[in-house]
Amino acid sequence: MMRLSPPGYSKFAQANSFELVYGGGEANVAISCAYLGMKAAHVTRFPDNALGKAATQFLRKHWLSTEHVFYGDKMMGKYFLEKGAVHRPSEVIYEREGSSFSLIEPSMINWEDVLKDADWFHWTGITPAISEGAAMSCLDAIKTANRMGITVSGDINSRKNMWHYRKSMQEIMPDLVKNCDIVITSSRGIREMFGLCSPDDKFKTCAKRLMDTFPKIKKVAKKTRKSVSASHQRIKGKMWNGKKYVKTDFLNITHVIDRVGTGDAFASGLIYGLLHYKNDMQALNFATAACALKHTVPGDVNVVSIENVINLMEGDTSGAIKR
Amino acid sequence: MMRLSPPGYSKFAQANSFELVYGGGEANVAISCAYLGMKAAHVTRFPDNALGKAATQFLRKHWLSTEHVFYGDKMMGKYFLEKGAVHRPSEVIYEREGSSFSLIEPSMINWEDVLKDADWFHWTGITPAISEGAAMSCLDAIKTANRMGITVSGDINSRKNMWHYRKSMQEIMPDLVKNCDIVITSSRGIREMFGLCSPDDKFKTCAKRLMDTFPKIKKVAKKTRKSVSASHQRIKGKMWNGKKYVKTDFLNITHVIDRVGTGDAFASGLIYGLLHYKNDMQALNFATAACALKHTVPGDVNVVSIENVINLMEGDTSGAIKR
Amino acid sequence: MMRLSPPGYSKFAQANSFELVYGGGEANVAISCAYLGMKAAHVTRFPDNALGKAATQFLRKHWLSTEHVFYGDKMMGKYFLEKGAVHRPSEVIYEREGSSFSLIEPSMINWEDVLKDADWFHWTGITPAISEGAAMSCLDAIKTANRMGITVSGDINSRKNMWHYRKSMQEIMPDLVKNCDIVITSSRGIREMFGLCSPDDKFKTCAKRLMDTFPKIKKVAKKTRKSVSASHQRIKGKMWNGKKYVKTDFLNITHVIDRVGTGDAFASGLIYGLLHYKNDMQALNFATAACALKHTVPGDVNVVSIENVINLMEGDTSGAIKR
Amino acid sequence: MMRLSPPGYSKFAQANSFELVYGGGEANVAISCAYLGMKAAHVTRFPDNALGKAATQFLRKHWLSTEHVFYGDKMMGKYFLEKGAVHRPSEVIYEREGSSFSLIEPSMINWEDVLKDADWFHWTGITPAISEGAAMSCLDAIKTANRMGITVSGDINSRKNMWHYRKSMQEIMPDLVKNCDIVITSSRGIREMFGLCSPDDKFKTCAKRLMDTFPKIKKVAKKTRKSVSASHQRIKGKMWNGKKYVKTDFLNITHVIDRVGTGDAFASGLIYGLLHYKNDMQALNFATAACALKHTVPGDVNVVSIENVINLMEGDTSGAIKR
Amino acid sequence: MMRLSPPGYSKFAQANSFELVYGGGEANVAISCAYLGMKAAHVTRFPDNALGKAATQFLRKHWLSTEHVFYGDKMMGKYFLEKGAVHRPSEVIYEREGSSFSLIEPSMINWEDVLKDADWFHWTGITPAISEGAAMSCLDAIKTANRMGITVSGDINSRKNMWHYRKSMQEIMPDLVKNCDIVITSSRGIREMFGLCSPDDKFKTCAKRLMDTFPKIKKVAKKTRKSVSASHQRIKGKMWNGKKYVKTDFLNITHVIDRVGTGDAFASGLIYGLLHYKNDMQALNFATAACALKHTVPGDVNVVSIENVINLMEGDTSGAIKR
Amino acid sequence: MMRLSPPGYSKFAQANSFELVYGGGEANVAISCAYLGMKAAHVTRFPDNALGKAATQFLRKHWLSTEHVFYGDKMMGKYFLEKGAVHRPSEVIYEREGSSFSLIEPSMINWEDVLKDADWFHWTGITPAISEGAAMSCLDAIKTANRMGITVSGDINSRKNMWHYRKSMQEIMPDLVKNCDIVITSSRGIREMFGLCSPDDKFKTCAKRLMDTFPKIKKVAKKTRKSVSASHQRIKGKMWNGKKYVKTDFLNITHVIDRVGTGDAFASGLIYGLLHYKNDMQALNFATAACALKHTVPGDVNVVSIENVINLMEGDTSGAIKR
Repeated sequence: MMRLSPPGYSKFAQANSFELVYGGGEANVAISCAYLGMKAAHVTRFPDNALGKAATQFLRKHWLSTEHVFYGDKMMGKYFLEKGAVHRPSEVIYEREGSSFSLIEPSMINWEDVLKDADWFHWTGITPAISEGAAMSCLDAIKTANRMGITVSGDINSRKNMWHYRKSMQEIMPDLVKNCDIVITSSRGIREMFGLCSPDDKFKTCAKRLMDTFPKIKKVAKKTRKSVSASHQRIKGKMWNGKKYVKTDFLNITHVIDRVGTGDAFASGLIYGLLHYKNDMQALNFATAACALKHTVPGDVNVVSIENVINLMEGDTSGAIKR
Repeated sequence: MMRLSPPGYSKFAQANSFELVYGGGEANVAISCAYLGMKAAHVTRFPDNALGKAATQFLRKHWLSTEHVFYGDKMMGKYFLEKGAVHRPSEVIYEREGSSFSLIEPSMINWEDVLKDADWFHWTGITPAISEGAAMSCLDAIKTANRMGITVSGDINSRKNMWHYRKSMQEIMPDLVKNCDIVITSSRGIREMFGLCSPDDKFKTCAKRLMDTFPKIKKVAKKTRKSVSASHQRIKGKMWNGKKYVKTDFLNITHVIDRVGTGDAFASGLIYGLLHYKNDMQALNFATAACALKHTVPGDVNVVSIENVINLMEGDTSGAIKR
Repeated sequence: MMRLSPPGYSKFAQANSFELVYGGGEANVAISCAYLGMKAAHVTRFPDNALGKAATQFLRKHWLSTEHVFYGDKMMGKYFLEKGAVHRPSEVIYEREGSSFSLIEPSMINWEDVLKDADWFHWTGITPAISEGAAMSCLDAIKTANRMGITVSGDINSRKNMWHYRKSMQEIMPDLVKNCDIVITSSRGIREMFGLCSPDDKFKTCAKRLMDTFPKIKKVAKKTRKSVSASHQRIKGKMWNGKKYVKTDFLNITHVIDRVGTGDAFASGLIYGLLHYKNDMQALNFATAACALKHTVPGDVNVVSIENVINLMEGDTSGAIKR
Repeated sequence: MMRLSPPGYSKFAQANSFELVYGGGEANVAISCAYLGMKAAHVTRFPDNALGKAATQFLRKHWLSTEHVFYGDKMMGKYFLEKGAVHRPSEVIYEREGSSFSLIEPSMINWEDVLKDADWFHWTGITPAISEGAAMSCLDAIKTANRMGITVSGDINSRKNMWHYRKSMQEIMPDLVKNCDIVITSSRGIREMFGLCSPDDKFKTCAKRLMDTFPKIKKVAKKTRKSVSASHQRIKGKMWNGKKYVKTDFLNITHVIDRVGTGDAFASGLIYGLLHYKNDMQALNFATAACALKHTVPGDVNVVSIENVINLMEGDTSGAIKR
Repeated sequence: MMRLSPPGYSKFAQANSFELVYGGGEANVAISCAYLGMKAAHVTRFPDNALGKAATQFLRKHWLSTEHVFYGDKMMGKYFLEKGAVHRPSEVIYEREGSSFSLIEPSMINWEDVLKDADWFHWTGITPAISEGAAMSCLDAIKTANRMGITVSGDINSRKNMWHYRKSMQEIMPDLVKNCDIVITSSRGIREMFGLCSPDDKFKTCAKRLMDTFPKIKKVAKKTRKSVSASHQRIKGKMWNGKKYVKTDFLNITHVIDRVGTGDAFASGLIYGLLHYKNDMQALNFATAACALKHTVPGDVNVVSIENVINLMEGDTSGAIKR
Repeated sequence: MMRLSPPGYSKFAQANSFELVYGGGEANVAISCAYLGMKAAHVTRFPDNALGKAATQFLRKHWLSTEHVFYGDKMMGKYFLEKGAVHRPSEVIYEREGSSFSLIEPSMINWEDVLKDADWFHWTGITPAISEGAAMSCLDAIKTANRMGITVSGDINSRKNMWHYRKSMQEIMPDLVKNCDIVITSSRGIREMFGLCSPDDKFKTCAKRLMDTFPKIKKVAKKTRKSVSASHQRIKGKMWNGKKYVKTDFLNITHVIDRVGTGDAFASGLIYGLLHYKNDMQALNFATAACALKHTVPGDVNVVSIENVINLMEGDTSGAIKR
């Protein structure tokens, strides 16, 4: 998606220009993975015009392979972001309806071809919410990945008010989730999407129920956010791996630069962590540190290095100058 | 419409921000009228969110009355403008489909109320091309204006490729045009919309045929543009008033700053001219001077004063500093 | 007034451009009222040139009625603002002497006409300090408002060093204040302007004395500011209504974006609160929340919505993203 | 003076920021002289605040000695510049009334001290127009320079509408001009200020009359400007030296970047030329080339090198890249 | 190379920021080829730090394959560009000494691997001028390309003052040129590098001599530039193909936006033309149109589409808006 | 050095422009001294081109005398600064190798002439690390200053990894330090450069040993930095004067704007303090307050006034607006 934001802390009513970057769940995760040194590609559909090309160029600049970007129709999905501060919330206006991506259909993508060199496939809960075509394409991808023995991770929130087509979240989600290896979600997500727990249940309980219901799932993780204010956030990670419940300490981001994409930074950190550490605690620490660092980087994507993440994960919170 | 353009002469592929203004045929005409000292209002429909409010604020800032701006649905119509130079054309990408304006319906507007203090109603050919609802609302307005004795002017180009709904340009346009007092259009427009002339016919001939066909029309005017290059344009005005054919000399805009909205500047100049000069030649000279000046003003709207226009109309092309 | 500020945290010595907005006590209050949904107009005098027009356009953009803006003379009042941080104070340089506003005379304004549809008239203590003509115009307005049964509020600080004409603050202020319904001022103000209390007296005592002296006054309010640093401010509201002394908790603005105009945000919040809540405690809470939010908005004016204020007033300090 | 201009070709009504530079007749000449390699100082009076300091810093940055900048009072003289294009004129709004410079008095400056190392003193006709104090200070300087054997040049236009104090241009100017060695002025200037010629007289005739009247004057020069449009200017130089009338060819500035300060560039070019060339024709060619180049440099001051000027003076109009 | 330029027409002395793009002969050609739809890669050596990575990201964004970018040492080659206008020349300051690229050695690159999927290899005369290591690497590449049957083109100017190492231009160049298929150079180049013609010889004569001397060369082409001023350039193409001498009409770029990289645009246009047209005249027309268009695009690289070039090549110089 | 930084909090990978200022240890100290009201000059060597001139102009703008700036060779020393936040470190990339300054030789400077009006000479440990020529020039200056009875201060860190020439830090430093009156350094510096203490020794012990070894030294001072995060720093000062050990309280910079140059601000504050206060405690308090304030000023140099420093030194940490 094209992200358009008034400069600095200006409100929409004060904007005379928009800063332009691109972002969106899966793209953010892919780019963050690329900055962590992994080879990554993004599969999407952009309008067949200069704006679609520019979006692709953004992905290329940030190290992604873009051979699986498809073009068609005319509207770029967009979101407008007004950045908040302290008690004033950030405000987001989406314009996704009718976008080239929302008009995607399973027939447009040959997933066997797309995934032929892949080890990992990641999707987010935004995709199936956008349109039935997007949901079916996502299901197609997951099933193909399963067939090809590729690990599948899904980052699924419950965004009830996003679902506007004839099928409901509750109808669509189980099919997608049951074939995942790793799921990132919250207690509320597990409750609202699958009805597996009650508001009183803790995350560990909900995660267990999810894994009992969908036995292919190996790990259920989440980040817990405490919003002290728009300018000050606290983050911790939690994970249930079927045997052990691990959680990190809180990381304290006292001067938020850009809070968008922090969940995607957590997801890409988790992918890196699970691939590179044997220990789930370390993987989760890595994911949480990556998430915390994203709060200090403008834009949607986590332009930080492995060294940055490892330093923070190992406890260096000083931010001391690197010469 | 929201207008988003890369800064300076950057191409879409090079943009990291967009300059933001608002524009669109009728709004441009209304604002230009306001700068010429006339009281003007804009009737439109914007999304019911902060972006719709910001668009309204733009209109207010440029002196319009906005009490007849309606709100509903969620998408702001947009266009992206990449500014060309010399042999490199400007490029425009429209995103109008699904906009709040395109979803307008006649039932949303009580034109008698809207027009109760008006002397003049102006519309452009873009509006009926956007959607059937927009076309029917426009027809409603014209008929109400007729009933209320309000002068009606229409600026109609033949943009065949804009018509995407079940009725064609040829079906819709006659009903709209036959109730107009003043029409701005080209020979090609008269040919393609009404089949009234052939490619070999001159403007005067086409204009006569149009007035013969639709006897309510009192004047048919056009501006002739000669595009020496994207950076150098030449403009002259022509008008047939049923009796006399008047035309101006060419004005030579050797260093174009912003070519968008120059047709609207011509229309508002013509409205001013016809209201303030008895002589059609003077009115046309005023309109052409206003049009030429717009080429030197960034944005869609013609932020120039009557003094500027009169000076140029009277032959002062020197642009000498005003202290 | 035109407000010119170096970008970001640059000092005057480092500026190569100035950001341009407009502001000033009464204009700030009026605009903030407009954003809270009230119909508001600003009465002032601007230079009769393109800068005076641009200032008017700023007011229009921010929803004010500007039919009572008068034009004359040639100088726009100005202030230059260098934004501080932590231990470095913001610095303000005023250029008000000789401005079109300072040359205002009572004869220029027909207050009966201006106030004919008004329910409320608000003025600040800056106006009478600027010139005798401004003071007399203000007095005229207050008396007319009284005659017409319009509520009058005044926000009066003691800015001794602003008074440069032949009458002193102590001579002018009592006449203005005695006809007010609502007064916003501090203990120091009551002491220095009216000699009604001593440095040891608390706000409640001072407020009582003020109401005893000027019995038309119904409520005396103030905000208390604790400046932890230029980047961190704490705010609470206090009010004496003749019967009860109410005060709010401190709101803690840990990352100040723009501290200017926060007093005006308090005033407009108080006007809204007193008009919409029966309970003075709620009115004061609303005013204090509005004031706190202004610290997070760039510029002089409080571009926030009622929803923002109510959320904060009801205790939601999280600044969580609004999608 | 502080110069504030909307970015690019924006009009005042469209500005959200101002670009900030400093300029003004004598300062422009001094800085241009410094860029041509001469040691130069500027004598002026700035407000005693951070803006006055910043103005001084601008002069220092551009190589001037600023030990004779005096500080006092509070207002910086200003002008607002809206840049025109083609048929749209640039517009300038001055705010000089009440500035620290306008409040200058002869007693504030010890000219013997100021001029102790000087070879040349230059003044412009703006200074005596601003206030009687400025006029008297200027007269003081000229007389002191005469006494000390320092060459005096004056660049005097007839800006009738600038004179607002109790003495007229016609009363003040002769005293100032009669002690000059070099005068830059136009036929109109000689006519309006001294009544020495009629509208039909050519420059040579007017210049002769001026030198007959004021025999200390050794050369009278002018530049002739033909404003094809705001974007295209043509410049030529003329000079009468008591014996010979020399004039240059037209230089053709087809793409004007900034037309302000071009007269000052001519003056500084003339000073350089007269000091470094024996031949008046060469001196005038140098001055005219310097003037032409200034049209291509943003801001008030002529930031070009001697090499640039000599190249153009010698006929290289190609602007070919210098690597 | 990193290209740093003051914004707009500011001079170095006026810059407070630099606009940042990347460029350099071969990179420009490769990117322009990519925009024309060809698959292209750039082979170079960047510093092993975040700036080297950022340069690579620029190449990726503009569609290049970057798998043959090598990293080592610490300094990024740079040039500073001050943009001229009319009679004021652009000025370029190079900082290439000690750059990672200048320290390249033949042993660092396995050209067989690099060229394994290539059809065409292009080099410029800048590379061998930079250092002996660069010259030897270039020679290595050319010989390998010859061996592999890959077409080789070289764009060679005579930049005598660039050669600072122990071997001269005259010693190095013949070895490089004799193995080329296509050479772009000027009469002066042929004279100064190879001593094959005299100042009086026309291009056709010089080109013939070059092909006689180095019989592998099949075509010798050049563009002729007439610099009317820094803002107005005229361009025509010439080519000798051993049998026929073809040349185009002049294209007239009346409003130059950025003149840098126009030679590289010609080269890439020629590569495209020779690959896609049978007719040398058409190929040369395509190259010249591409070159002319580059003058209207900011930055070093020719971000235009084939459609743009073909339109101009077919005579449409109107720059009419593309909607 | 030229300092190039991406705007705001952008990372190198996200930069499309660089903000440009100049800085470097000794220049920073000199400019900060000038802002504190002292007359200061900077002695350095810049490239003989427009960039070298622009650097000089920066120094002049910030009040330095630049008559002892020498020009030669072609490369400006540079550093690229990416600003960090919270846990994300700032990153600095230096390009000093081959700079005009690094090629300085003692024979280029006549120190007796340079220092003829000086009271104080300050150098930093960066200079001798850059090249042997720079080290020898520095030694020359110190010895000349000693001969002329000028106080010498040195601010020396141990930057082992900067030393790349044939002499080591341990060989060079003692000669430079033994002739200083005031030394600013850390325990680690004293240990690594002179081997005079062990990691367990406190600053007081190390400072004593240094003064025992080099008896000309009268005071050894340091600032202690506690980096809570990149956005939050705590600073305190310490000094041993041979008799007494003084130290300040921590100053708490909760919202860092620019952390670069804070050590230089401490040094210039110390110079001012020692010259203006009799009491070492006050001098150190002044230095520490100056250092703290620099964290709130963008750029390398401490553009604050004496009043700012004294206010903070006297305990006013409120940052309350100064009108």
